[in-house]
Amino acid sequence: MAPGAANAAEPLSTVDRPTSFFDLPVRHRPCVQGTVYLVGAGPGDPELLTLRGARLVQQADVIVYDQLVAPAILDLAAAEAQRIYCGKQRGNHTLPQHEINALLVRLAQEGKRVVRLKGGDPFIFGRGGEEIETLASRGVPFEVVPGVTAASGIAAYTGIPLTHRDHAHACVFVTGHLKDGTTNLDWQALARPGQTVVIYMGLVGLPVLARELIAHGMPPGTPAAIVQKGTTRQQRVVTGTLATLPDHALQARLKAPTLIIVGDVVRLHDKLAWFAPERTGETTPAM
Amino acid sequence: MAPGAANAAEPLSTVDRPTSFFDLPVRHRPCVQGTVYLVGAGPGDPELLTLRGARLVQQADVIVYDQLVAPAILDLAAAEAQRIYCGKQRGNHTLPQHEINALLVRLAQEGKRVVRLKGGDPFIFGRGGEEIETLASRGVPFEVVPGVTAASGIAAYTGIPLTHRDHAHACVFVTGHLKDGTTNLDWQALARPGQTVVIYMGLVGLPVLARELIAHGMPPGTPAAIVQKGTTRQQRVVTGTLATLPDHALQARLKAPTLIIVGDVVRLHDKLAWFAPERTGETTPAM
Repeated sequence: MAPGAANAAEPLSTVDRPTSFFDLPVRHRPCVQGTVYLVGAGPGDPELLTLRGARLVQQADVIVYDQLVAPAILDLAAAEAQRIYCGKQRGNHTLPQHEINALLVRLAQEGKRVVRLKGGDPFIFGRGGEEIETLASRGVPFEVVPGVTAASGIAAYTGIPLTHRDHAHACVFVTGHLKDGTTNLDWQALARPGQTVVIYMGLVGLPVLARELIAHGMPPGTPAAIVQKGTTRQQRVVTGTLATLPDHALQARLKAPTLIIVGDVVRLHDKLAWFAPERTGETTPAM
Repeated sequence: MAPGAANAAEPLSTVDRPTSFFDLPVRHRPCVQGTVYLVGAGPGDPELLTLRGARLVQQADVIVYDQLVAPAILDLAAAEAQRIYCGKQRGNHTLPQHEINALLVRLAQEGKRVVRLKGGDPFIFGRGGEEIETLASRGVPFEVVPGVTAASGIAAYTGIPLTHRDHAHACVFVTGHLKDGTTNLDWQALARPGQTVVIYMGLVGLPVLARELIAHGMPPGTPAAIVQKGTTRQQRVVTGTLATLPDHALQARLKAPTLIIVGDVVRLHDKLAWFAPERTGETTPAM
């Protein structure tokens, strides 16, 4: 295989195209009874679901889903498919995690085709690992279907590249969902230059986050953005600096879910923003 | 909206289902002439392309694609669509970046529906930011469609959660593609405990990476994995510790593309691995 030899200025014929470098591992692999499919539903826009995820939802006998899963994704399921809501809200866990784990085991042992749908990607702040640990320990077959994580989705829909040779050589993801008002974040590592810091679920903790980052040496003038309901019609982007963002977010009366991006790449938003959510004039329902 | 009031043990009717929390911003939004769509093709398995990405590829007049895009994704395009290969190999850039940028501008100005397909996610080590900066400065309309980044895809297909409450409260992505044998990675930040470190394109630099992380205080016994061609039939997972992985990778004669994951979460691979790539017995073509 010598794709480098192809003339990039000309269209490649089917014959000249690089040979099958990536083969097709799972295409048309069926949705199997008694198996749990842990599927990432993506960041909000239902069009960002994967082909594999869509096919599994269509074939499932039962869908166990979280709050942040778009209704349009649930609508892909068969009319007769059972839909079980177990989503979490801050401070209002509808089903405790251990009961979700037990539910998935039971449904699979009943021979169902189970799709466990989670917002974003199941292995980035999704507790997907905990759910399949239970399945593995009980001998229940499972598969994991990754999703577009909120950081990728929101970066794309706000024109903020997470890495950029001129601005950031690394990006780091943390969760700002502080338990009991405390946090075990590694402020010293997060405050270092040359990286983009992405904070999931950071709206409530934003004043603490900004204060600690500044206290640990991040310049107060570092560009920062907080994005409400990114990739959806209700997307709202509030930008500022590390010093000003908490006040700006307060004034904008943002609602969860939000994502915070801190770093020089945020500067590119002014130039690279392209997504214009349609304004409906409706009041956004509170979470 | 009170989704918490739903009885999680019962299926929800259409009426009781939480109302449209995430509306549908782009569904059926057409592929527009004279626009460049920067689309993330995902980590390898073509089934991990997004619905939006698939639809745009189907509607495009011209596809400008990189080496790591699966042939099955290109096969989604119309027979008459022009396919332009401009993919990069290490040390063998088929088209320099500035020529790719100029090509995209020209195609859009010709009134084409242009899909720029990149492996993974365009805003995580994809140089997508640089390409759309050129488009923005030339007044060319563009959109960005995120993809499943290699870290998410490979974590899912190897059973290694990137975050896990018991093991890692953060994950950090860096590129190990060292220019001219040097590196500007922030070893001190990367070596800190409690996080998962993901290194894109780190095969060649692995001995240096391991040595520097250990020199900066990461325990040599830290679990580590290197994954070749993750999410595809040619997926191979080599595990070890920070101290042993370079030798193991050498002995396994791994080929790029690879992804390296370092951190306690790697331990979960033994328990949570589920993806069994079909062995074809074929020799994998070298990059």
